[in-house]
Amino acid sequence: MKALVLDQQPMFIEDYPAPERKPGEALVAMRVAGVCDTDLQLAQGYMTFRGVLGHEFVGEVLEADDASLVGKRIVADINAGCGECDDCISRNGHHCAQRTVLGILGRGGAMAEQLVVPERCVYPVPDEVSDDRAVFAEPLAAGLHVLDVVAADAERVIVLGDGKLGLLTALAVSQSGLATTLVGHHRHKLDLAIGVDTSLESELPDGLTAAVVVEATGTAAGLERALSLCQPRGTLVLKTTVADKHAVDLSAIVINELSVVGSRCGDMAAALSCLADGRVDPTPLIAARYPLAEADRALEHAGRRGVLKVLIDR
Amino acid sequence: MKALVLDQQPMFIEDYPAPERKPGEALVAMRVAGVCDTDLQLAQGYMTFRGVLGHEFVGEVLEADDASLVGKRIVADINAGCGECDDCISRNGHHCAQRTVLGILGRGGAMAEQLVVPERCVYPVPDEVSDDRAVFAEPLAAGLHVLDVVAADAERVIVLGDGKLGLLTALAVSQSGLATTLVGHHRHKLDLAIGVDTSLESELPDGLTAAVVVEATGTAAGLERALSLCQPRGTLVLKTTVADKHAVDLSAIVINELSVVGSRCGDMAAALSCLADGRVDPTPLIAARYPLAEADRALEHAGRRGVLKVLIDR
Repeated sequence: MKALVLDQQPMFIEDYPAPERKPGEALVAMRVAGVCDTDLQLAQGYMTFRGVLGHEFVGEVLEADDASLVGKRIVADINAGCGECDDCISRNGHHCAQRTVLGILGRGGAMAEQLVVPERCVYPVPDEVSDDRAVFAEPLAAGLHVLDVVAADAERVIVLGDGKLGLLTALAVSQSGLATTLVGHHRHKLDLAIGVDTSLESELPDGLTAAVVVEATGTAAGLERALSLCQPRGTLVLKTTVADKHAVDLSAIVINELSVVGSRCGDMAAALSCLADGRVDPTPLIAARYPLAEADRALEHAGRRGVLKVLIDR
Repeated sequence: MKALVLDQQPMFIEDYPAPERKPGEALVAMRVAGVCDTDLQLAQGYMTFRGVLGHEFVGEVLEADDASLVGKRIVADINAGCGECDDCISRNGHHCAQRTVLGILGRGGAMAEQLVVPERCVYPVPDEVSDDRAVFAEPLAAGLHVLDVVAADAERVIVLGDGKLGLLTALAVSQSGLATTLVGHHRHKLDLAIGVDTSLESELPDGLTAAVVVEATGTAAGLERALSLCQPRGTLVLKTTVADKHAVDLSAIVINELSVVGSRCGDMAAALSCLADGRVDPTPLIAARYPLAEADRALEHAGRRGVLKVLIDR
């Protein structure tokens, strides 16, 4: 099958072996996949992943133990836990020590004609959610996950970074009714965050701070800025994994007794719900699309400075 | 008066002007003061503080508006808030934006014959608590403050660092009944943590992790080690302010969704209570003592590698 495979570097392969479905897994035909910055970091050596890239996708089930799934359009939680440990039973397995993660850790990904995912990770897509919206379910779920650490009495959330993740996170937080300020460097990107207060970083209002600040730039400068925007005893949410070490003055964490909270994957059902009723429309973020046979070009395009979401069509 | 004063560098001054008591403040004769690593960092330029050093002390009230305080042995909360803002009214003013901090920010400190502190910051010392124990009230309160962020269901707390702060924090956490493991590099220091499980870092049990890890080394290596010892969704408590920037791989915070929580000053009354009933005996940490007239030597001694608590007697 056609696939974008990471070995020493990413390369498109015309006749890569199709994945084999095990009991309890669904074999899925990819329909649309998205390129995430994590894919670019994996290509740089992050996690030392080898195999088919891609964890943002919408697809159609070709085979499954559960016959009712066959033929369904689906998205999937990318974390495939063992299904038996405490984390899998009492939570969602996102921290199961035995987990595989689609296209990131121990499991081939979605930038291919076919992929396999555990059936328990599968979420059917409502008819009213187009492929181009459904492919955003995974990063939108990650954005919504920020709400899980926002204190009930928070008055405002500042999101730092007007890239893909910052925009989706700002839209995700804002749709909940929380006052949200998105801060970035590009007016044309900030304008994509419909309904969200926005500010260029160079024009930040004097004294603007918040009890919750989301760092979505993935840079050391962004992290320091986020620390400075966070009120004493506030929460700084880190959304981005980065391959490099940060050289950052962390003393504000102690002096202001901040909580710096890592936030990774979220609830796919909640994301689909937001997409289904139109609370979040991610399609303005689509910057380009390529056929799977040009997936290597899609990755290269996504790596250019300032590019938003690049999609790959089967 | 005699005082250890930080200008460009710390120097002992024989005839430094005594501080003037304002309404609502207590004029205090220092009896014993302690040298903290923060004093050493201030001497290196941290906080750009200028004035009398020292924030760990026990003293005797010479003058106060509240006549009942005069003649009392006291310790003090080092954070002197405005007394009127939300943080001062509803909490303890530790994050009051207008606050002064004894010997650290906008208020001369305790390494002098006399100091002034707001009366509302004063805590009388029970008779059964000796000066040599009472002088530890401030750092012990900081250690006890860790308990404020420990989840109710935590099974074990790992404290990293066998310096002054790590030892006091381990003793503070352990006396609460929580299983506590202190990790350090020096067997003779670890042995001072009576009643606490200890391990040399080179002999850490395989797979040792905890839901709560306290970083008390103040080094980048310690922070990375602490991140690795923290269970998924666990809490890493940062206890030390450091003057330098850390170059640290922070991706574990996101991948494991850790909470990194800064923790600074604690409740002085709780510390005095621990000292009064003997739940914590900090006196084995005393490494040396100097008269105030040799306070500069005390600071130099405290700065030597591996030295625990150095005291200064009036």
